[in-house]
Amino acid sequence: MDFYIEKANTCQRKEFLNILRYWNMHHIPSVEMEDFDFECYYVAKVENKIVGLSGYKILNEKQGKTTLLVVLPEYLGSGIGKALQLKRLEVMYKKGIKSVITNSDRKETIVWYKKHFEYKEIGKIKKLISFGENDVDYWTTLEMNLDEYMKAKDKKEKFKEEYKKENESYPITPYQPLIINVALTGIVPNKSLNKYVPVSIEEIVNDAILVHDLGASIVHIHARDKDGVMTNDARYYEEIISRIKKERPELICCATTSGRNGQSIEERSEVLDIIGLGKPDMASLTLGSLNFISGASINDIDTVTELAFKMKEKNIKPELEIFDAGMINLAKYLERYEIIDGVKYFNILLGNLNTASGTIKDLAHIYTSLPKNSIWSAGGLGQFQLPINIASIVAGGNVRVGIEDNIYYDNEKKILASNKLLVQRLVNITEQLSREIAKPSNVKEKLGLKINE
Amino acid sequence: MDFYIEKANTCQRKEFLNILRYWNMHHIPSVEMEDFDFECYYVAKVENKIVGLSGYKILNEKQGKTTLLVVLPEYLGSGIGKALQLKRLEVMYKKGIKSVITNSDRKETIVWYKKHFEYKEIGKIKKLISFGENDVDYWTTLEMNLDEYMKAKDKKEKFKEEYKKENESYPITPYQPLIINVALTGIVPNKSLNKYVPVSIEEIVNDAILVHDLGASIVHIHARDKDGVMTNDARYYEEIISRIKKERPELICCATTSGRNGQSIEERSEVLDIIGLGKPDMASLTLGSLNFISGASINDIDTVTELAFKMKEKNIKPELEIFDAGMINLAKYLERYEIIDGVKYFNILLGNLNTASGTIKDLAHIYTSLPKNSIWSAGGLGQFQLPINIASIVAGGNVRVGIEDNIYYDNEKKILASNKLLVQRLVNITEQLSREIAKPSNVKEKLGLKINE
Repeated sequence: MDFYIEKANTCQRKEFLNILRYWNMHHIPSVEMEDFDFECYYVAKVENKIVGLSGYKILNEKQGKTTLLVVLPEYLGSGIGKALQLKRLEVMYKKGIKSVITNSDRKETIVWYKKHFEYKEIGKIKKLISFGENDVDYWTTLEMNLDEYMKAKDKKEKFKEEYKKENESYPITPYQPLIINVALTGIVPNKSLNKYVPVSIEEIVNDAILVHDLGASIVHIHARDKDGVMTNDARYYEEIISRIKKERPELICCATTSGRNGQSIEERSEVLDIIGLGKPDMASLTLGSLNFISGASINDIDTVTELAFKMKEKNIKPELEIFDAGMINLAKYLERYEIIDGVKYFNILLGNLNTASGTIKDLAHIYTSLPKNSIWSAGGLGQFQLPINIASIVAGGNVRVGIEDNIYYDNEKKILASNKLLVQRLVNITEQLSREIAKPSNVKEKLGLKINE
Repeated sequence: MDFYIEKANTCQRKEFLNILRYWNMHHIPSVEMEDFDFECYYVAKVENKIVGLSGYKILNEKQGKTTLLVVLPEYLGSGIGKALQLKRLEVMYKKGIKSVITNSDRKETIVWYKKHFEYKEIGKIKKLISFGENDVDYWTTLEMNLDEYMKAKDKKEKFKEEYKKENESYPITPYQPLIINVALTGIVPNKSLNKYVPVSIEEIVNDAILVHDLGASIVHIHARDKDGVMTNDARYYEEIISRIKKERPELICCATTSGRNGQSIEERSEVLDIIGLGKPDMASLTLGSLNFISGASINDIDTVTELAFKMKEKNIKPELEIFDAGMINLAKYLERYEIIDGVKYFNILLGNLNTASGTIKDLAHIYTSLPKNSIWSAGGLGQFQLPINIASIVAGGNVRVGIEDNIYYDNEKKILASNKLLVQRLVNITEQLSREIAKPSNVKEKLGLKINE
């Protein structure tokens, strides 16, 4: 509702009386209400029509009194009454008034004055004629300390904002900009299954640039050797990351430490030893052992702990990979021992055959079980990718997307996915929800990553 | 993955050997495998390239044997092996074969044969030369009853489909077409707040036609009198519904029986007495008392029960309105006494200040608590409308949308909503999820509503 507040003028007498008639407050002048002093009245307008008014009177150097405050019934609840009251309070405050008297005969309005403006009841006066509520024959007199109210106002507004942010649901708590994390390549997809999967260093770097330019903040990197087979060889990672950093210095590069093919901890952590431009900002840390269709992925507690320590020593932020609710417990264990700390970044991956399913029930259970001070993304494997991404956007989370998890663009498996298409679709949906897309530099700041390296 | 199966031909010897080499099965002819009889071989092709092959041999009138079955490693998991096996089984079955022998030396493949084709182990044979798996020096001999398998095949496939449908998550269980239920007018919105809210009979009928043509199956109707004030007067409802039915006979009309303004049960149920063309197909039944910002809405158990009985007597389907999980209990109570029965239609409304919040956690909790044989829609009040609609589409539910619940199109409250815009946006999002939009006639069938009235 677009409205604005203006000072009243003497030509508005007729409109004033029309509005006041709705509330039986048009008996003016009378023993209940003296004639309008238009100098002390304000009006609220919607598209040039007066829809509400308020007035005040200075009683003495320190004390003021409100006269009338009405809004047309169909505009109640639009914040117009609050704006009209605030206006007259501000004007009186500027004139040096310290306390304000207000009379009301309507139960709901009395509660409203107490709730929003900290009035207290100080007495009752009998009405002299029919004025306002017909079945109430007295005025309740309220008083507020204008000086205290005005001095504490900003602080109280801030408290309300903070409270909302911590306790209200999205989108009443405003959405934070969406972090898009793209798993470009993975281990499983190959050119036979999807010709768009980036496999060579060149292709991976190009896809990283493409998705960055569409709105991605993080790229999750798996390297492949010259035959397109997955490799832990740090030289590949170093070249991919340094080439990305030359082109898009702000893009966050997250290297895998996956052990899906039974690699040793030395092989898995080779990438953490890179120094200089090719050093990853983040590295994946899967918080438990689990079954994929292709076989078990073993991440025993000792291995996870050792990898986490190495990331801490090298100042590389872990990307905490969660496939089921119980995996969160290992994050809490690591945090208890201060092996991970600060803002934690979780990736929730749903829809794998033998871990949490790709439903909003599983997603809700998992994200509401995360420890404090966590940022979370969610993605789904295969057909679950899009629904879980969308549910995450709605729920105020972030997204993990990319060919690693899903080689098809559509549910019918007719259209091959490309990282570009997948990111573009999410950007479109996010915009429909009036949610912004995060910039890598802001994500770095949020996650406590070095900005200029 | 688009592939097709073709009969092999003698020119393919070299390609055969190339594929077999991947699996160390290219020693042909040898003491382990006689030369190819191309008449008994099939190939799987992707874009004209052979990616797999299978063969068989007739041993005698009733018994057959499989020879080779291989798929290129990068095409494993695409269903190609299963199609190649099925092809040779079908051919042998047509030739009158009743049982099939298969040898394998690979653990995973043996499990695969047992799982998909009901083989049983019947013995082991020592390998004579290196062939297949290098570290396994014997063949496991498997046998299947082809006759039984083929006869039970369709039934078992059907069981698997049914099982999936009941137990798997969407979209692996295919989404049912989306039912769009539009609350056109409501009680609260007025022309001052949103000029697009349909208030007159003419406007309500026109909006019903508009949203029907965009994909809505159900319209939820509140009537207003000549001054735009809510009314229970059945004459208004009769005229609105009969005019809608003349224009769009299949559109499902659901009349409100809301008691939000303290109406008596007689006033609330007047609409249920309409007969003829203007009779509503459905009527709302709020399953409990609750607080709106504007005041309490009282629906005590006696009132709800009486309204439900009247709907049952008049053969009007209740639209069960749920604002919190506990309200489901009253649906179960009514069903236990057979006051409601058959397929139940629930509307889940989230994001009201004093009932369940507009989060996916609340939605998941509520929709997974519904009784069996229920169809559900979900909507959110105000800013929660779009996120909850989207979450419901993802979760396999349906949507309730419309100006009644939300007068703004965007989260910033800059753009006024119209019923048309709100429905169009949901249709677009639904299509992105490869989900169809339901037709009113199908919804009538699902809900057990009279099709031609």
